[in-house]
Amino acid sequence: LRKISYPEQLTELVDQLRRLPGIGPRSAERMALWLISGKPELARDIGSSILTARENLGHCPRCGFFITGESCRVCEETSRDLGLVCVVEHPTDVVAIERSGAFSGTYHCLGGRIAPLDHIGPEELRIEPLLKRVEEQEVREVVLALSSDVEGEATANYLREILIARQVTVTRPAQGLPAGGGLDNADEVTLSRAMAGRTPFS
Amino acid sequence: LRKISYPEQLTELVDQLRRLPGIGPRSAERMALWLISGKPELARDIGSSILTARENLGHCPRCGFFITGESCRVCEETSRDLGLVCVVEHPTDVVAIERSGAFSGTYHCLGGRIAPLDHIGPEELRIEPLLKRVEEQEVREVVLALSSDVEGEATANYLREILIARQVTVTRPAQGLPAGGGLDNADEVTLSRAMAGRTPFS
Repeated sequence: LRKISYPEQLTELVDQLRRLPGIGPRSAERMALWLISGKPELARDIGSSILTARENLGHCPRCGFFITGESCRVCEETSRDLGLVCVVEHPTDVVAIERSGAFSGTYHCLGGRIAPLDHIGPEELRIEPLLKRVEEQEVREVVLALSSDVEGEATANYLREILIARQVTVTRPAQGLPAGGGLDNADEVTLSRAMAGRTPFS
Repeated sequence: LRKISYPEQLTELVDQLRRLPGIGPRSAERMALWLISGKPELARDIGSSILTARENLGHCPRCGFFITGESCRVCEETSRDLGLVCVVEHPTDVVAIERSGAFSGTYHCLGGRIAPLDHIGPEELRIEPLLKRVEEQEVREVVLALSSDVEGEATANYLREILIARQVTVTRPAQGLPAGGGLDNADEVTLSRAMAGRTPFS
């Protein structure tokens, strides 16, 4: 007796959806069944959207932000302070900082951070293009907005050395208590940095 | 100052992925970024897989199982006992029962269950094709393997009436204690049904 199983294309779809980050076998099956049972437009829209986005979106070879086609929103920016560059790990960090509305300079996405255990050295990151920008754009200040874990710190230290050698002021975002949180929710490191960096209350 | 935001195609992709069941805004963003940053083949494979599956997979108008093109694995089955039909709600239930390897008859997928609150009446389900099969296939026994909640019970009762009127034996899977579970894990209803349906220990 041959067991009745899912048609091959359904199994194939489940396998493909399982490759998505955070999607296990159960969710993949649920998504696959939903896709093939719902309105045909749904699956068509989602499928084509994936294909179009992948085909048209890329990273700017200069600053690392997302680009569609040739034009890069960060590099084409003229209304922004070109002498002030904020270095981040990923393009998504740019959007997060932009949401805050508190920065009027330009951005540079490294594409990650130095992580020897993952075989990511300085050469794997967009450091050369950053140094080129520093020269061409007459950058006077670079803000290093990297993660505050060990690898982020190491990357920040590495960059500080080579930037200071080029007579650039190197800064980083203030570290302290997050907005809306009580003192009892802050961890020791955050609290000690907040106390050390205390500012006049005016 | 114009805020730098995601390119339109990326926002569009996030919006599309959010339509998937169980995917919130954060997971959709994570999936979208993963799709456009990873190897191009990844996105291409996943995207085309969704399109192909939706285009080629459908439900058999007769038994309701998945079909690719014209052929239906359930309806084409000849090595199986055609006089024994197991009625389930969804095609996925067929695969679950097949995994158990304990059934050698054929299947019939209703496409859901009677749920007046969701405006699903008997006409919305594949009941007509079932009755047609009962006559054509000379079915002697129908196993109603539906959910054991209120709506599943109502659907089972409805089907039993019309099937018994056609001189068909109507059965259902045994209810009792699940394998591997202790008595203290079983709820009252399960336990009372298991006790009422106790079988000789031989």
